Amino acid sequence: MRFLIEKESKSSQARIGKIILPHGEVETPAFMPVGTQGTVKTMSPKELKEIGVQIITANLYHLYLRPGIEVIEKGGSISEFISFHRPVLTDSGGFQIASLSPLISIKDDGIQFKSHIDGSTHFFTPENVVIYQEKIKSDIGMCLDICLPYPVEYNEAKRASEKTIEWAKKSKKIKSEEFNLFCIIQGATYLDLREKATKELLDIGFDGYAIGGLFLGETPKLSYEIVAFCNNLIPKEKVRYVMGCGYPEDILECVKLGTDLFDCVLPTRNGRTGTAFTSEGRIIIKNAKFEKDFSPLDPNCDCYTCQNFSRAYLRHLFISEEILGPRLLTYHNIYFFIKLMEKIREAILKDQFEEFYNNFKRQYNRNLI
Amino acid sequence: MRFLIEKESKSSQARIGKIILPHGEVETPAFMPVGTQGTVKTMSPKELKEIGVQIITANLYHLYLRPGIEVIEKGGSISEFISFHRPVLTDSGGFQIASLSPLISIKDDGIQFKSHIDGSTHFFTPENVVIYQEKIKSDIGMCLDICLPYPVEYNEAKRASEKTIEWAKKSKKIKSEEFNLFCIIQGATYLDLREKATKELLDIGFDGYAIGGLFLGETPKLSYEIVAFCNNLIPKEKVRYVMGCGYPEDILECVKLGTDLFDCVLPTRNGRTGTAFTSEGRIIIKNAKFEKDFSPLDPNCDCYTCQNFSRAYLRHLFISEEILGPRLLTYHNIYFFIKLMEKIREAILKDQFEEFYNNFKRQYNRNLI
Repeated sequence: MRFLIEKESKSSQARIGKIILPHGEVETPAFMPVGTQGTVKTMSPKELKEIGVQIITANLYHLYLRPGIEVIEKGGSISEFISFHRPVLTDSGGFQIASLSPLISIKDDGIQFKSHIDGSTHFFTPENVVIYQEKIKSDIGMCLDICLPYPVEYNEAKRASEKTIEWAKKSKKIKSEEFNLFCIIQGATYLDLREKATKELLDIGFDGYAIGGLFLGETPKLSYEIVAFCNNLIPKEKVRYVMGCGYPEDILECVKLGTDLFDCVLPTRNGRTGTAFTSEGRIIIKNAKFEKDFSPLDPNCDCYTCQNFSRAYLRHLFISEEILGPRLLTYHNIYFFIKLMEKIREAILKDQFEEFYNNFKRQYNRNLI
Repeated sequence: MRFLIEKESKSSQARIGKIILPHGEVETPAFMPVGTQGTVKTMSPKELKEIGVQIITANLYHLYLRPGIEVIEKGGSISEFISFHRPVLTDSGGFQIASLSPLISIKDDGIQFKSHIDGSTHFFTPENVVIYQEKIKSDIGMCLDICLPYPVEYNEAKRASEKTIEWAKKSKKIKSEEFNLFCIIQGATYLDLREKATKELLDIGFDGYAIGGLFLGETPKLSYEIVAFCNNLIPKEKVRYVMGCGYPEDILECVKLGTDLFDCVLPTRNGRTGTAFTSEGRIIIKNAKFEKDFSPLDPNCDCYTCQNFSRAYLRHLFISEEILGPRLLTYHNIYFFIKLMEKIREAILKDQFEEFYNNFKRQYNRNLI
């Protein structure tokens, strides 16, 4: 991969750039919709492309269990198997194992876990996780990490952070030269752990640096502080990725702090459950007040959903539990996020990022419910 | 509405024609995908149009309960409310009341029923059912009928058939001149009842004649016999509609017997549960043998699903309970039915219907599972 920085903001750390990957180019800052099981829930690849999605994430833990590495390998690559034909980043699944597996045991040399599907036992090591991601030809792979919930005590955070560094070293060692591997900085909310992790991972050397274990319930202020701290340690020519950061206001702040990549289930999960992100804040479509509201979801949006359907009809679809409801709201939400990133990039290009940020916050919070 | 017969088959009763309706034209014989609650399950209106769907059905019983007549009326019409902008036929819901309502009571002047959603009590009369369908501007409305399960005793079938005729008379009386209303011929499997119903309904005079209460478990031979019998009584310049007929082999036989319209949940329901109709028979996609099958669902199909996705990926989507699975199989199934109707029309036009019918059966049954 190559990462080209095309413009740096004068008033902040924000920058625009381009990551050149095996399956295509990604303009940064970029939001990556989450396609955990090899599909961005409810969406077709055609729709993702028409919206302008340049990269999605998938999850090795899920794909390893279903359909299995061999099936995807035979399908050509994860990107071809799912017929996206654009870059796919795979997360190693440390976070998913921790949240889904009914029984996990962290060993010195990897994570033993039981499948949440059939209870069978498996063992992920820093090495096999890289090998699997290479086999399915992820455009970017992630090192195996230990992701802890918030809050967590210092000593536990320290052990997890140090183990993650140790595993990153092993991952780097086994990977093929041409494979793009990002490491993950852990250390919870402890700045000294974050500092140690960042510096040691920089010494090992990776294509990109992800900050994990944030946006898990701590205050936004604290998250921002850690992102700012780590981003300042990561040389500007490296890709910076804040994992699981997805509220528009958080994305804007992290872009300001020099972040290039984002992923989050927010637009898809909220879309499925009936919450839309709009230019005027969030809307819960099942609300009774929309029963006879024939205006579009977002009056300032030109997506397929907003150009064709009323709030009254969308509400009807959700009340009647029709799949088209989650489809149309997810479509709109992803469109909203992708357009937000386009506007952010445009604002940085024109040296108007601060102004854009302030205007967005003012408008977006106006009707926040 | 106007119904133009454009060509009659020389070797059978099959014919092609065109129904001109407020929201557009429908080429017949036509298959109408079912959009019970104002959406063809999992599909967007854009997809229906790209497949070439010219008309869908919706259900008054469902729409009356949710979102309610008033909401749809305010939305312009059922076709505009759901953003289809093409013809929509609404069934009155006699069949749905009988199969879904927890408590129904057939009175002299209508059907009292409890909502399957909240248990509230409602009363459908031949008159209000027409008024509701006019309010939501259905392109074609259906009279309220009494649809009985199979098998049913003669006396019960007789009462239902006669009541349906009586109600049809009332429906005709109340409808506006410009509203297109079809009657429903009931009478179970008793030819004398079917004969009486058809003749009396012809005396009342409708825009089209539907045969209801068939394909409910009786043998195909018996269904065909009744369709042939009724179709022969209905003058050829009238639209003939066999309700709930949906297996490709049944559609072909009923086309041969002079039928113009079909509707059935088969392509959508089967699509959602993982069964695909293909040129070589039906496929159950979850079957283990498709795990590493990277061929398309139907090698002879050029739909979006077959052009872009493998059986292995479709199987993965179903096994993983991802919405894209039902979406892609429903898309393919509707495409299969719509293309089948196009091929039927083409064959009739070329005076090759018998040949087409025989070839289809041979190919379709080859790998039937």
